[in-house]
Amino acid sequence: MSDILAASSAADWRALDPNNTLLMELPKGRVVIELAPDFAPKHAANIRALVREGYFDGAFILRSQDNYVVQWGWPEETPRKVKKAHATEKAEFFRAVSADLPYTPLPDLDTYAATVGFSSGFPAARDAEGKSTWLVHCYAMLGAGRGDTADSGGGTELYAVNGHSPRHLDKNVTLVGRVVQGMELLSVMPRGTGALGFYETAAERTAIKSVRLEADVPAAERANLEALKTERATFVKLIDARRVRRESWFLDPSGHLGVCNMPLPVRKRGG
Amino acid sequence: MSDILAASSAADWRALDPNNTLLMELPKGRVVIELAPDFAPKHAANIRALVREGYFDGAFILRSQDNYVVQWGWPEETPRKVKKAHATEKAEFFRAVSADLPYTPLPDLDTYAATVGFSSGFPAARDAEGKSTWLVHCYAMLGAGRGDTADSGGGTELYAVNGHSPRHLDKNVTLVGRVVQGMELLSVMPRGTGALGFYETAAERTAIKSVRLEADVPAAERANLEALKTERATFVKLIDARRVRRESWFLDPSGHLGVCNMPLPVRKRGG
Repeated sequence: MSDILAASSAADWRALDPNNTLLMELPKGRVVIELAPDFAPKHAANIRALVREGYFDGAFILRSQDNYVVQWGWPEETPRKVKKAHATEKAEFFRAVSADLPYTPLPDLDTYAATVGFSSGFPAARDAEGKSTWLVHCYAMLGAGRGDTADSGGGTELYAVNGHSPRHLDKNVTLVGRVVQGMELLSVMPRGTGALGFYETAAERTAIKSVRLEADVPAAERANLEALKTERATFVKLIDARRVRRESWFLDPSGHLGVCNMPLPVRKRGG
Repeated sequence: MSDILAASSAADWRALDPNNTLLMELPKGRVVIELAPDFAPKHAANIRALVREGYFDGAFILRSQDNYVVQWGWPEETPRKVKKAHATEKAEFFRAVSADLPYTPLPDLDTYAATVGFSSGFPAARDAEGKSTWLVHCYAMLGAGRGDTADSGGGTELYAVNGHSPRHLDKNVTLVGRVVQGMELLSVMPRGTGALGFYETAAERTAIKSVRLEADVPAAERANLEALKTERATFVKLIDARRVRRESWFLDPSGHLGVCNMPLPVRKRGG
């Protein structure tokens, strides 16, 4: 796999769009998130608006449930008022397939969907008719928590998957992006002892220093990341290298690959 | 799901065998492990022997790789000598199906195996002919690390899955059991910054106070856990409740279930 990446060309990579990139500063370091406007345009726009009005600055990690999700936002007892952004958005659980949305399908069967693969750098699924597509809940995917109704989310509460993919959440929540760097800061958050892994005391919560849009920060503070394009031949070679494990350590080469078992390479711009 | 468990009878549960139960004491609490002698009898026996000669007492968490595994044993620079136990065992990557091994298959497709389901409380897979079966690498499953050859493991290095199931490891490593309680102590271990998530300095390692076989400790110190039997109707009802999500929050009931998405209930004996 490292050989294939080493042989990649500049054209195999895309710079993360600073307008789709969030920089979340935690006490122990930075978490970088890529939004997915191809799948959740309204949520992406609203999260940008929330970030720009400082909604997440001083917010907290509220919940860490083992083998499920880590979630952040404002506690019920000290809510933060939304200013110009929207408190909720219409659900964006799935979208129509269109010719301009790239899709690199995997050859293997999936438990939950007719086909799975990758679109615009994200793990995605499609229905048997190839008409509908949606992002899937792999590790480090970012979702917009919601209440009991479809349109009750919007980005004011965000969660990242910290364990085995909870695929039963697919098409039940709007996935809005992916943690592309710093997931290891979120995954080690102590598990909360309350229901659903919520922290039972304020002292257990980790404060978020700030969340900023990369486009809004000085050049020196940007993450400047690039991601391997998931629609090019280099990525298809990587898929093959992960499907059939040729490293000498593997005594059984597997020959299969799950959509959540495929690394999606991200690196500093220029390699 | 809680309704189904509440309606379960005593006969739906099996007490964990103290001879197959390990108590690993970490600075922040206890991790309870169930060994899987039905699948890895030689490794289970050897791990019992290692535990009884105190092999793991004072050992360290050596490695925590994000979305992969957390591993423990002795560092290369200060190895612990194996006394009566074996340094290595013959690989037990899979076994023959036999009539006395229960199997509750799932109706859904799996990416990696012809069928998947549950045997003796563990997630398992079977080949298309129904002749061979093996444990699968779900979250919290415990494996015996090995070197480059099949028979180079044996239990002196153990790892637990801390992220999305690395199913490409199936049939490549001997799975020896499952963390049934306290996984949240292992999953939050800081990720190591060395290759494969190894800690680069001794100071980063967490010391293991002791690992004991439950059969060897005084009654007051036992975990006394019981697990839901995976071959009875109550468990089949649970599978159905997880396949088709009828809770009002679910707007799409899913209708599918992955083998690593099924909780395997464990509780204090007697409920």
